[in-house]
Amino acid sequence: MPSLPRKGAGNGATVTILGLGLMGASLGMALRAIGRHVIGYDAAMGVAERAHERGAVDATCDTVAEAVAPASLVVLAVPVLAMRELLAEAGAHLAADAVVTDLGSSKARVAAWAQRLLPEPGRFVGGHPMAGGERSGVQAAEAGLYRGCIWCLTPTLSTAPDAVARVAAMIDGLGARPHLLDPSRHDKAVALASHLPLVAASALVLTAAASPDGPDARILAARGWRDTTRVASGSPRMARDICLSNHEPLLAALDDYIAILRRLREQIASGDLALEETFARARDARDTWVAANPGQQVTGSGEA
Amino acid sequence: MPSLPRKGAGNGATVTILGLGLMGASLGMALRAIGRHVIGYDAAMGVAERAHERGAVDATCDTVAEAVAPASLVVLAVPVLAMRELLAEAGAHLAADAVVTDLGSSKARVAAWAQRLLPEPGRFVGGHPMAGGERSGVQAAEAGLYRGCIWCLTPTLSTAPDAVARVAAMIDGLGARPHLLDPSRHDKAVALASHLPLVAASALVLTAAASPDGPDARILAARGWRDTTRVASGSPRMARDICLSNHEPLLAALDDYIAILRRLREQIASGDLALEETFARARDARDTWVAANPGQQVTGSGEA
Repeated sequence: MPSLPRKGAGNGATVTILGLGLMGASLGMALRAIGRHVIGYDAAMGVAERAHERGAVDATCDTVAEAVAPASLVVLAVPVLAMRELLAEAGAHLAADAVVTDLGSSKARVAAWAQRLLPEPGRFVGGHPMAGGERSGVQAAEAGLYRGCIWCLTPTLSTAPDAVARVAAMIDGLGARPHLLDPSRHDKAVALASHLPLVAASALVLTAAASPDGPDARILAARGWRDTTRVASGSPRMARDICLSNHEPLLAALDDYIAILRRLREQIASGDLALEETFARARDARDTWVAANPGQQVTGSGEA
Repeated sequence: MPSLPRKGAGNGATVTILGLGLMGASLGMALRAIGRHVIGYDAAMGVAERAHERGAVDATCDTVAEAVAPASLVVLAVPVLAMRELLAEAGAHLAADAVVTDLGSSKARVAAWAQRLLPEPGRFVGGHPMAGGERSGVQAAEAGLYRGCIWCLTPTLSTAPDAVARVAAMIDGLGARPHLLDPSRHDKAVALASHLPLVAASALVLTAAASPDGPDARILAARGWRDTTRVASGSPRMARDICLSNHEPLLAALDDYIAILRRLREQIASGDLALEETFARARDARDTWVAANPGQQVTGSGEA
């Protein structure tokens, strides 16, 4: 049933990307720029064609089976909750030594699905590039999206070392920086660094929008408001899947966050002048993080 | 006792700025660029001299009395809780028709102090430019800080119309946009658009810093984290004064925020797929705000 794509098949260097939104199409552009042969698949009508037009893939396929058969590396670039079905579908058609990775925002659940659904779970290497932002869709894709970013890889004890090496080599080739850590440590870390900020930003917008003072606030909202809420303009589907697939670490972080907000509330309500020290601790902690991690400053293309 | 500054005194165009941090020194630079004569005062050792070296003022004075005597317009540019003492001190030495304004982040309390402490409260016009950001101090000052920004003016029924006109003319001259509204409406609006985001951002940093997973999170923190927490890197003193001087509207906004976070928590904990609609509402509301207010997009000088 699967027909071979027209070129590059079987040369050991073909990468197949399943899902051609912002993340998948940007990856395709970046891989093509370093000479890799890229096959693309997207379940949504017309998306693969647009990705091809934008130069994100060399060839497109109409089925997952057809797309993955010739690939030495298969990359799943769909929202986390769609990974399960895609892993099952792709698993049946993988080449013998193919390596599978993904770009999902949480890793423990994806790793568990891969373990259950792939014929050779040791050839699955969970991945998560710390890039993206509030834009979404193939139209927002850009070849430079991953340059300089930290790219988490979350192998387990049963992952084949050569599989990790194959994915790490791709990441190196893109000018990104592989960072290995355990899936559950990854999930707790991104709950703090990424998922909690997303929930906090969305709640800020919802608070302002629901208020009778919202129309006045809208006029006064300046750069501080824009930056603080920027991530709330991302894909709602992706945001939902992030929250639901990583709910345990996220709920723990959210409970800590609400407790800290309540302590700040107490200080404000009581007119506590030591509030200055609380804000100083926050400033110092942030400045330390930013100074310790200058390479993570991505100068993206800004607001859509 | 007050000695006259050396030049420009009494010509009706002298502006005196009390407080030469980011806001005051930037205002001095901008006013000098349009030909106004600027006198500066700052209570902290050496700050007025640095402002003079940076071209933010034409002349400096060692006392408030000396600084305000020749001014047709006096601008208070200190943290909100320092305004009260400064209004009392300046009030005794103002010229007969001098107009007083301020750059404070909350307006009801400053208006009440002006009413009680100034000899002619009708010549006080509360002001609040929606500009600034996380930088602070005279070293961060720049002439273009206010260009294009919304600048709230909060006159009351007893404010003299010519006083409002004088301040509005200055704002116009700087290329900013005067926006008149009632002090209490202003305070509720900035609680949502500015003060709540400040508290939310600081709490995000404190949550991550206090977690055992903080060190992992620091490595993964990318542009989303940076932007969401940026305002937490501002002056802790200013943050404290903002919160304490505007505590009633801020506490109301904070309670709404915590309630919305709790509802999001419920949706996450129960695996509610309708979470996608919640995020879609947040995205749509934010995109509407951003689209409706493109002029407020300040392209600042970025992170310090």
